[in-house]
Amino acid sequence: MKTLLLGILFVFTAFVLKAQEGHELWLRSSQKTVPVKIICSKNTPTLAIARQELQQGWQGEPNATVTLSITKNKKIKTDGFRLTQHEVEATTDRGILYGVYELLRRQQTGEGIQDEICNPSYAIRMLNHWDNLNGTVERGYAGMSIFWRKDDPFVVTEQDKTRWQEYARANASIGINGSSINNVNASPTVLTPEYLNRTKAIAAVLRPYGVKTYLSVNFSSPKVIGGLPTSDPLDPAVIKWWKDKVDEIYTLIPDFGGFLVKANSEGQPGPQDFGRTHADGANMLADALTPYGGIVMWRAFVYSSNDKDRAKQAYTEFVPLDGQFRDNVIIQVKNGPIDFQPREPFSPLFGAMKKTPVMTEFQVTQEYLGHSTHLAFLSTMWEECLQSDTYQEGPGSTVARCTDGSLYPQKYTAIAGVSNIGLDTNWCGHHFAQANWYAYGRLAWNNNLRSEQIADEWIRQTFPPASPSTTGSSLYAADWRENFLVPVKRMMLESREAVVNYMTPLGLHHIMSANGHYGPGPWWAPEKMRADWTPPYYHQAGTNGVGFDRTKKGSDAVDQYREPLAAQFNDPATCPDMFLLWFHHLPWDYKMKSGRTLWEEICAHYDKGILQVRQFQKTWDKVQPYVDSSRFVAIQRKLRTQCSDALVWKDACLLYFQQFSQMPIPYYLERPVNNLDEIRANEFLKRIP
Amino acid sequence: MKTLLLGILFVFTAFVLKAQEGHELWLRSSQKTVPVKIICSKNTPTLAIARQELQQGWQGEPNATVTLSITKNKKIKTDGFRLTQHEVEATTDRGILYGVYELLRRQQTGEGIQDEICNPSYAIRMLNHWDNLNGTVERGYAGMSIFWRKDDPFVVTEQDKTRWQEYARANASIGINGSSINNVNASPTVLTPEYLNRTKAIAAVLRPYGVKTYLSVNFSSPKVIGGLPTSDPLDPAVIKWWKDKVDEIYTLIPDFGGFLVKANSEGQPGPQDFGRTHADGANMLADALTPYGGIVMWRAFVYSSNDKDRAKQAYTEFVPLDGQFRDNVIIQVKNGPIDFQPREPFSPLFGAMKKTPVMTEFQVTQEYLGHSTHLAFLSTMWEECLQSDTYQEGPGSTVARCTDGSLYPQKYTAIAGVSNIGLDTNWCGHHFAQANWYAYGRLAWNNNLRSEQIADEWIRQTFPPASPSTTGSSLYAADWRENFLVPVKRMMLESREAVVNYMTPLGLHHIMSANGHYGPGPWWAPEKMRADWTPPYYHQAGTNGVGFDRTKKGSDAVDQYREPLAAQFNDPATCPDMFLLWFHHLPWDYKMKSGRTLWEEICAHYDKGILQVRQFQKTWDKVQPYVDSSRFVAIQRKLRTQCSDALVWKDACLLYFQQFSQMPIPYYLERPVNNLDEIRANEFLKRIP
Repeated sequence: MKTLLLGILFVFTAFVLKAQEGHELWLRSSQKTVPVKIICSKNTPTLAIARQELQQGWQGEPNATVTLSITKNKKIKTDGFRLTQHEVEATTDRGILYGVYELLRRQQTGEGIQDEICNPSYAIRMLNHWDNLNGTVERGYAGMSIFWRKDDPFVVTEQDKTRWQEYARANASIGINGSSINNVNASPTVLTPEYLNRTKAIAAVLRPYGVKTYLSVNFSSPKVIGGLPTSDPLDPAVIKWWKDKVDEIYTLIPDFGGFLVKANSEGQPGPQDFGRTHADGANMLADALTPYGGIVMWRAFVYSSNDKDRAKQAYTEFVPLDGQFRDNVIIQVKNGPIDFQPREPFSPLFGAMKKTPVMTEFQVTQEYLGHSTHLAFLSTMWEECLQSDTYQEGPGSTVARCTDGSLYPQKYTAIAGVSNIGLDTNWCGHHFAQANWYAYGRLAWNNNLRSEQIADEWIRQTFPPASPSTTGSSLYAADWRENFLVPVKRMMLESREAVVNYMTPLGLHHIMSANGHYGPGPWWAPEKMRADWTPPYYHQAGTNGVGFDRTKKGSDAVDQYREPLAAQFNDPATCPDMFLLWFHHLPWDYKMKSGRTLWEEICAHYDKGILQVRQFQKTWDKVQPYVDSSRFVAIQRKLRTQCSDALVWKDACLLYFQQFSQMPIPYYLERPVNNLDEIRANEFLKRIP
Repeated sequence: MKTLLLGILFVFTAFVLKAQEGHELWLRSSQKTVPVKIICSKNTPTLAIARQELQQGWQGEPNATVTLSITKNKKIKTDGFRLTQHEVEATTDRGILYGVYELLRRQQTGEGIQDEICNPSYAIRMLNHWDNLNGTVERGYAGMSIFWRKDDPFVVTEQDKTRWQEYARANASIGINGSSINNVNASPTVLTPEYLNRTKAIAAVLRPYGVKTYLSVNFSSPKVIGGLPTSDPLDPAVIKWWKDKVDEIYTLIPDFGGFLVKANSEGQPGPQDFGRTHADGANMLADALTPYGGIVMWRAFVYSSNDKDRAKQAYTEFVPLDGQFRDNVIIQVKNGPIDFQPREPFSPLFGAMKKTPVMTEFQVTQEYLGHSTHLAFLSTMWEECLQSDTYQEGPGSTVARCTDGSLYPQKYTAIAGVSNIGLDTNWCGHHFAQANWYAYGRLAWNNNLRSEQIADEWIRQTFPPASPSTTGSSLYAADWRENFLVPVKRMMLESREAVVNYMTPLGLHHIMSANGHYGPGPWWAPEKMRADWTPPYYHQAGTNGVGFDRTKKGSDAVDQYREPLAAQFNDPATCPDMFLLWFHHLPWDYKMKSGRTLWEEICAHYDKGILQVRQFQKTWDKVQPYVDSSRFVAIQRKLRTQCSDALVWKDACLLYFQQFSQMPIPYYLERPVNNLDEIRANEFLKRIP
């Protein structure tokens, strides 16, 4: 009978739930909205948006009156607001807008509203777009750039403006207030008048939604597009060129946010090319921006080919410069010491630079976590980082507190996320990847939010239960929570750990395919390739064991962590399993806390990852009655591919490492179905969906 | 500890067991052979081989005396023998040779020897090679032809002769005494002098091993190579042409076996082209062969495009001709009514032609069972057919008894197997495919053998335990039986049912890809394609159900079976599940004996097939210490591919049929990982390893 019932549902739901392409993100129009009266004494473009959102989204008491008040309440910070059921109070119109979105979210999710003040954790909450001027997106898996294009690059169409507006609205709804709109591997050309004019047009659309525009700049710009003989940051002509350029920008965009800079990193030019320091370079740009209140976000993602341990280099290079930066420079640090891996320990730079503002950079786009093919809710990864205790000012010195101004005085606090947005109808390629955009924004607003709550909010807004009145069925109302919300949330919360299991368990890292970073490539090491670009540098697998020795006897990277962490990480007996091979090179038969050998434990983790993805498939297939067919099928297909490709990861890694371990995969585990040589020959790993 | 131990074995066995390429088949040289004295009063080439085999393979008492006696014992049939521990008695030298092989097999397998007489079930035990004159092999998955080649086609090299000799020896060792050496889709050219000369050379090598040579002939040969205006079998010039051709052949090959004919089948010419019957055609050839004792094997594999049920046609066409054939014509009937599917009910022709010799044709090559990629021990399939009760002469009228002369008087009894042999070093592509050659031979000799015994014999000869004295370890002697023989045998005996489960469970049939017959293709039905070449003709899936209605209300194919079978097959309640959709079109929610719906049952079978293959992988990986590394790895790789491809079968069929069932795959089962449209687009199905 049960099967029969489900069979009937199977047919029937296709008619009930309108197919959805996902373009509305979490801002779906609801059929439950009712009229509302709005009182607001001022009128600005931003407040007009706030009114309109209330009018089209109000789900409270019909014909209630809502007051929007701009006051000088000192408890309310810039962008913050006070919220009651029928009032939003703020010190700026942007605060009002955020308050309105929060109020509507509470109505949509059913969360209650107390009289409460909500202030953001960070003043600047950035999305970094790695969009190239030719319209491609570096590490983008959701189509071409929404900002730039190759053909007719300077024509601004109505379609452009509509999309930028939708983008700005989505950002505003979760509190994101800054967009750096071009790749950190920046083309100097972005600072030429034509591109600045297009930037102006973009900024004009983003402005009423409270989103400031920023640009990534190339440190060689004075030479390349300015015609100067040098780009030395201490050269007066260079200083003047940048000052003039900044003046030009602010003439066009009076509220321009500032510059994002990747310098002396992976071949990009920088001050070290002229014998200057990062501080020299950053300060020169900062000085040009100071008159306008602009800032410089200077990335600490630096490493040279001749160091013995890439993980140590950002710390080594930047800590000595602590105290030398202007107060409108913020050092932008990736969450981990290497590069956005599925799991890394937090970067030791957090809390180590006590006299310099530091911001975290998260990667919303899934460069190393399965692109837009794998379902991976990254909120748990970011939460893990933000809640990591650095011990820099005693217990409780979390990464969150080291960067949000609560431990160190900072003129500016900020956070950045590398965007996963493109021209795809659903913006992010995978419907569930939208949740990462959402989660990043929510954590940027409140760095103490828990992923469970974020997932709950997102699901309620993105896959709302069908309304009983419109479907003629009470099925959804009755069991939606139990049969949809709970299992889907569980899947999301487990998803990143599944990826870690089938890609890089137990502290393994950087073993992906070089080409595309999608599939496995632990073997990849062409002759003459710089070692720190090859996976064997990171996993160090040999017959004697596996893992990177970063203990005191090895690279001593543990020393960059404050005690008690340094001692804890240094000893395999106290080092958390999840970081074990990050800090230790251990024999294959090393006895784990579980009682299993290291080799068995590795095998068990890879296997568990597969079982988890299979469980996700079951979870998703079961919720079919609650989802429109279009999104249901799209996600179902992605999960199938994820499962197949996770199996390639598992098989490739186990068969590769088995060459060194010389031990059988425990016989209670499922056997490989892919052959190592075929995986390598097929270069499966290049798959870019 | 256990893991550690296995880890050590893992390394260690690579050195102990010599890598084997599998060319020796089940005739491996043993290190346990000892000297033997042989008494034999005659000397012929065949007896010389018998002596040599004894000398190089004796594992009995050292320096024992063995007597080979040719007598006139009437209890011993042609090819049969009497066996004691130290004597082989036979009426022909071929019988002596078979007795010697049996004696050596008993020593190798450890089976005891009583004083016993062994007579073959069939007088003629054929391998049919579908080898084309250009060297390709139709439905061959083990390389090119061992008999023919494109370049220098008429040069007979020493390498050729060595290979033919090895081939003949392998056949003789299991009692095969006839080879039809060219494709049944026959080129008339094979009857030209150059090809007959090469045939003579082949026959010369096969002869001392007791293997007679046969040829497939094209019915149009008189016109195509004879220059006659017709090939009408009643035309005097045609009759004379064939008589002259037969004379020519027997001049070259005095013991030539006869002709195999595929006529009026799948576009091949035949007597019906001239308004004559199969009997007219077969008899004309038979008359030409009679003076030499040659025979005609006339295939009943016929079907026309306009019949409503292809399964009925061979019976419809041949039963009316019963009694009209010469006594040296044998009708060669495939085991099932359609075409070598993973499972079919037996052909109703068995036992239906009471005045005509009928022989079964099995397919040793795995055209529909995964080529040389899937491990499928076909002995169980053939045993199932041979032991099927036709009830034609009351209970116990098995297919075996209907064809071996025990129910119907026949001048000739015969059996045929379509070869899986090619130039690959291991002869059959898959090491385990050798077991099918072996099993076919053993069943042809004794159609009451059980697959369990055949598998046991084959394993003991093909993967013998390493000798304790040579390895310095007693591991093999102690636990070889428990840890190798038993699990590998279990895997073999289950393997064909696994293929049925993941390809064509519950009576489904002919749903493979048209191109290559390797992968799934239930959807394949190009416009204007004749219906009975398309899978939808066979599965009849629609929203109202699935299966081919062959009941009295449908095509009435059940009527071709003798009661009580007709009634049993006609009623879904009594029809065995394994034939359910062969005989019935049933709704998706039909309640099965298991209590599950038909749809659930289908899903459960496909799923079980996958789990079985995964278990085979575990079984094989576990026996690694007992197998040389070369064969271990080769088989391990095949099993991996089998598992992946079985999953494609499962996913393709379930997702295809789900379009009609409109029911979910039960949520307790693993979900598909392949998308239907991608499987179809990739034409995965063409894979020919």
